Amino acid sequence: MGSYYDRERHGPFEIHDLGPFLLENGGTIRNLQLAYATFGELSAAGDNAILFPTWYSGTTKILEQAYIGPGRALDPDRYFIILVNQIGNGLSSAPSNNPAPFNAARFPLVSIGDDVRAQHRLVTEHFGLTRLQLVLGGSMGAQQTYEWAVRYPEFVRRAAPIAGTARASAHNQLLVESFIEAITSDRAYDNGWYDNAGDIHRGLRRHARLFATAAFTPRLYAEEGWRDLGFSSTEDFLTGFVEGHFLPQDPNNLILLARKWQGGDVGRNSGGDIKKALSHIIATTYVIAIDEDGLFPLSDIAAEQTLVPGSQLKHLSSIWGHLAIFGLDQSYRDGIDTILKDLLATA
Amino acid sequence: MGSYYDRERHGPFEIHDLGPFLLENGGTIRNLQLAYATFGELSAAGDNAILFPTWYSGTTKILEQAYIGPGRALDPDRYFIILVNQIGNGLSSAPSNNPAPFNAARFPLVSIGDDVRAQHRLVTEHFGLTRLQLVLGGSMGAQQTYEWAVRYPEFVRRAAPIAGTARASAHNQLLVESFIEAITSDRAYDNGWYDNAGDIHRGLRRHARLFATAAFTPRLYAEEGWRDLGFSSTEDFLTGFVEGHFLPQDPNNLILLARKWQGGDVGRNSGGDIKKALSHIIATTYVIAIDEDGLFPLSDIAAEQTLVPGSQLKHLSSIWGHLAIFGLDQSYRDGIDTILKDLLATA
Repeated sequence: MGSYYDRERHGPFEIHDLGPFLLENGGTIRNLQLAYATFGELSAAGDNAILFPTWYSGTTKILEQAYIGPGRALDPDRYFIILVNQIGNGLSSAPSNNPAPFNAARFPLVSIGDDVRAQHRLVTEHFGLTRLQLVLGGSMGAQQTYEWAVRYPEFVRRAAPIAGTARASAHNQLLVESFIEAITSDRAYDNGWYDNAGDIHRGLRRHARLFATAAFTPRLYAEEGWRDLGFSSTEDFLTGFVEGHFLPQDPNNLILLARKWQGGDVGRNSGGDIKKALSHIIATTYVIAIDEDGLFPLSDIAAEQTLVPGSQLKHLSSIWGHLAIFGLDQSYRDGIDTILKDLLATA
Repeated sequence: MGSYYDRERHGPFEIHDLGPFLLENGGTIRNLQLAYATFGELSAAGDNAILFPTWYSGTTKILEQAYIGPGRALDPDRYFIILVNQIGNGLSSAPSNNPAPFNAARFPLVSIGDDVRAQHRLVTEHFGLTRLQLVLGGSMGAQQTYEWAVRYPEFVRRAAPIAGTARASAHNQLLVESFIEAITSDRAYDNGWYDNAGDIHRGLRRHARLFATAAFTPRLYAEEGWRDLGFSSTEDFLTGFVEGHFLPQDPNNLILLARKWQGGDVGRNSGGDIKKALSHIIATTYVIAIDEDGLFPLSDIAAEQTLVPGSQLKHLSSIWGHLAIFGLDQSYRDGIDTILKDLLATA
């Protein structure tokens, strides 16, 4: 495990070992390790649990920093909040930390459904839960949220997919393919058999800049909104913030996550029929879109929302576009808290 | 000159040799060849001329096919229409056709201002014009249109920049940099010293797919709008249409155009002050935006339009997004004709 994925940066977190875990695509992870962190106390009745899985290239640390706090919607004085690292992110089992021979380029292909099945085992077997008050997540976390609500409808009382979709659109798949290709086209990547992840820095930098074209808004660049984070020029921001985020990460991990993202489709639970799959949701669902999102456009999100029974479409606006989910601006934090508090107050 | 850039595909066209041409960035093109095509007859009074320069990766052929025809706004029975190939596009002087030693990677850096100064010489010296009834262009053609209206205000009676900006935004520059890098990261590119342009097909294909993420709309993919062009799957479309468009083109030509695009800024005419530069425009100007444009977002276009005295912002909508300018759908062709006819009818 590279030093980036350590407890100093991303902890504290716990590991739950699920033993051998059979994947939807046929592979097996011999000792699936799910890394998670909890906040608050589980009530005696077990009726205050919230689950929040990670997004692409993120760990539970950013979720903690951006969403959890006293007085906020995710208030640890009130709720038992379980943050869980998705498979492949480097804290949970991933190409970078899995033992040979199933390491690096041989880590098996994982689906969003695999994550949700593993998380279901965590919350039932380890925490003894029978219901979650809320499942929420942003981006790939939204994919997992939809999957939860479709796959375990009775288990999910409320759902809040944020800035993400139940099925990756063709355009979204194409964008993600360009992210993957930015890395794999680096000679040093060597089909995933590099010795040092840092050797693929050209590909990781290229990947970071592609991400930056779609994940932020044109207005962020026009108005130099990155100055709020202390950067001095567009180049300074792209290098310091965006490349800085991706450079220390493992290329195989990112590609595994990206392939999982591309394959995201709750319709797999209903023979490919997304309408049928979403019709199974009984959770009170707020579908939350960021109006300026270049990765998950409002039109795609709104189209799926109409397929979720009784759901509501909620809008947020941010100069950060998709990356608003990082909680970089206070107005997003206030806006998402208002929506989530409203949702948590529903019967 | 590669076979792609021949008269069979792109003709008929004429060549005007401007002799030695000093560029804004200090270089010189020894015998600048401007390739152009005309339609209709110049009136005796010389008062029916329209100028229409090309966009990125395009030639005058697509302008002819998409915009000119009897009964259309650009009616050759009524107007003398000059279509001109921008410097570097492969019909006009370009890395692919310029004699050594100023060929390939040594072709000098060209600016939008250079194109417009060269076009001004073409229409004054060669055609003897003193005024243009209309200058219009899409994308990089819009950059040239703005440059014309700023640099030669008395010369341009009407202007119609379509789906483009007077100054490349930081986000736009970043997107274009990703296009460039898609090509230059191909080992076969060899800093521009390849023997055969076709050897860079990996980079050209990568470039094409990046272009396809931004230049088309998510809705095009979601609704499979590409079926209207006879393609059978997203892959079939991406390969057959998008890769097919870029693959036969010269990598150095594309990169020269892309660098020119990135540097587009009418503010260069006013010491960097775009507001001051645009305030010089006296042409009756319709600024035309495609609402769904992912390359030149409506917000960027609208912000500049407010700086052009007396201008109007006109909207078009197309599932094709930026690529609507290719005239692929009839509703765009009808819409643009209505706007241009309205503009041409102004006093």
